[in-house]
Amino acid sequence: MTDSRPTTTTNHDPIRLGIIGTGLAVEKLHWPALKRLRDRFEVVAFANRSRPNAEKFAALSGTPIDRYVADYQELLGRDDVEAVLISLPIPLNFPVSRDALQAGKHVLCEKPPGKDAAEGRAFVELAAAHPDRVVLIAENAFYRDDLRLARSLIDGGAIGRVHLVAWRNVSQLIPRPGAFSSTPWRHHPGYDGGPHLDAGVHDVARIRLLCGDADRVSGATQDANTTHGGPSDLALTLRFVSGAAGSYTASYPEIPAPDEPNDLRLYGTEGVLSVAWDTTRLFRPDGTTETHRAEMPDYGFTNEFRNFADAVRDGAPVVGTVVQSWRNMQLVLTGLAAAERGETMPIDPWPDALSADAVPLWRPPGASGLFDGLETAVTREVEGAS
Amino acid sequence: MTDSRPTTTTNHDPIRLGIIGTGLAVEKLHWPALKRLRDRFEVVAFANRSRPNAEKFAALSGTPIDRYVADYQELLGRDDVEAVLISLPIPLNFPVSRDALQAGKHVLCEKPPGKDAAEGRAFVELAAAHPDRVVLIAENAFYRDDLRLARSLIDGGAIGRVHLVAWRNVSQLIPRPGAFSSTPWRHHPGYDGGPHLDAGVHDVARIRLLCGDADRVSGATQDANTTHGGPSDLALTLRFVSGAAGSYTASYPEIPAPDEPNDLRLYGTEGVLSVAWDTTRLFRPDGTTETHRAEMPDYGFTNEFRNFADAVRDGAPVVGTVVQSWRNMQLVLTGLAAAERGETMPIDPWPDALSADAVPLWRPPGASGLFDGLETAVTREVEGAS
Repeated sequence: MTDSRPTTTTNHDPIRLGIIGTGLAVEKLHWPALKRLRDRFEVVAFANRSRPNAEKFAALSGTPIDRYVADYQELLGRDDVEAVLISLPIPLNFPVSRDALQAGKHVLCEKPPGKDAAEGRAFVELAAAHPDRVVLIAENAFYRDDLRLARSLIDGGAIGRVHLVAWRNVSQLIPRPGAFSSTPWRHHPGYDGGPHLDAGVHDVARIRLLCGDADRVSGATQDANTTHGGPSDLALTLRFVSGAAGSYTASYPEIPAPDEPNDLRLYGTEGVLSVAWDTTRLFRPDGTTETHRAEMPDYGFTNEFRNFADAVRDGAPVVGTVVQSWRNMQLVLTGLAAAERGETMPIDPWPDALSADAVPLWRPPGASGLFDGLETAVTREVEGAS
Repeated sequence: MTDSRPTTTTNHDPIRLGIIGTGLAVEKLHWPALKRLRDRFEVVAFANRSRPNAEKFAALSGTPIDRYVADYQELLGRDDVEAVLISLPIPLNFPVSRDALQAGKHVLCEKPPGKDAAEGRAFVELAAAHPDRVVLIAENAFYRDDLRLARSLIDGGAIGRVHLVAWRNVSQLIPRPGAFSSTPWRHHPGYDGGPHLDAGVHDVARIRLLCGDADRVSGATQDANTTHGGPSDLALTLRFVSGAAGSYTASYPEIPAPDEPNDLRLYGTEGVLSVAWDTTRLFRPDGTTETHRAEMPDYGFTNEFRNFADAVRDGAPVVGTVVQSWRNMQLVLTGLAAAERGETMPIDPWPDALSADAVPLWRPPGASGLFDGLETAVTREVEGAS
């Protein structure tokens, strides 16, 4: 693949953004980030099949309603739209991104890149066929300050060689008013894997950011949830390119789960790292525990939009590439296939190579530190050996 | 297999027991149980290659030193020995049990039944070839009061259908004076699988007692411990005959592990059961938690000897058969082989059939309750929905 995007430019005008789909993810995740980056983005158009939903977005964001169009094709036809944010039901990610790229727009599209493996591969090829356009898949885990901090600890050798990666993530999944679980398209999904493709790709992104690619997977599935499509339980055994062994279990039962640790644990030869929802703890062999917190404004979404803007305006490299998000969905889908077939399956390296150092660590452009210029409040507490 | 053991007898004299190997397991596990059962067993002979170790056992147990013999073959040649307890390094389990059965003794032998898969199968055949002798493999997990209680909850439908079985068991393993980890034969083991065959079979026994047989396994291994032979880490994905999915990870790192939950969790359609070292908690969907404790005298060893005595004297069925312990070691060894080959492997049903209800629940003979006539103190606390 070649990259013919400009590497220097003097244009630092806000990017003229069109939003396609103004549902829950935009309301909860994308708009709060865009609001912080008014100098980088201006919403010049937004599309939604439902006018009431569009009016809701106009009201909450203060975007004039005359920027609304019902049909996203109309939005794509406008010359004043430079880039689009696509936040739609999963089966629309690929076709709408294709239309947007064909219309010459830069694309920031929600994960996963496609409803199944065939679409995921087609999405990789689609992006490669548009080297002069920026395509970023909204895998916020790559941009989360807490996870970047955890990654920097590993890169710094804090736990030595990681030999075991273990994560069990169990949480009840039933439709709740106002939450993503209430979305009708999630209940009878037109995509493979149910919650494992929808939410599980974030887990895999976290694992890959911290531990690199797996090259082998086996699995087992079961179902204990009538409210969502797809198996509720996915248990995977992983082998990593690094040589580490891995165990990943995700369960979305219909009944409540008791208190679950739900932290990802990385066992190293010189320490153990526990990566929980908002806290990273480093356990050293001498009995000391370091608790690291990165108080984030928004779980990585602002950083993600920064990376997108820097890529569009300055040719900065994208961390959340289509290939990266393909790798995330690929591991979920290969694990599901391995479970169904009763086989241990290799991870296909296409389109490049699997790597122990798979995901680049995003930093603010020109920064040497992880948090230079960001609002992130980082704290570190050390408790001595007991 | 036929069973020509007597089903009725009037002989309730104590069983004249010979002990072969009087090391740490006898001191810590078997003797405390035998001491409680003086009406069922009398130690008439004991063998140890090391006279100082034998003297230590004589002193702690009050057994006259004139019952000591250096050579276990001499012990097996004595007509006054009815049965033997074999507690030796793992590679001796099979050959010494074979000698004992050929000498006409009933056998209670420490787990695992053999140093590798070939010996395990040979042990199954050996026991089948001696239908008039009782052979019990000392898998105490089958007899633990807390685990029997947990099993009875599952049998009673407390958590509905079990759909997911998940267990991660991590604990530092380094030689500690006076502990099993100090035993030299464990550091350079003459058997497959290192700590996974030695300790892991107990984990599998617990899983099988509660969830039945697995019929498919895949795995990954890594090593991060220079003090013991075999891989330190084993991550397995299981599929059970019942249909449940399973994840089992055992890690014995050289450096200290942080606080780990280390509880086995069974996720059912009507509740979740957490089975920890000394506490079983039942989480119901309505938010109530039932905490069950069975304060055991000794983690099942006394029950195990009771079962052995009842089998020898009254023809009672043995729960801890060679086949049952073969199944435990078989799952560990097949998981290790699956990891090495990079394959998902079926569990060979030989010599009978795999079952969702694999391990019979031991009860005191003639008892309808689980704890009739035992010293076990059972408590149950209920906390309401919060």
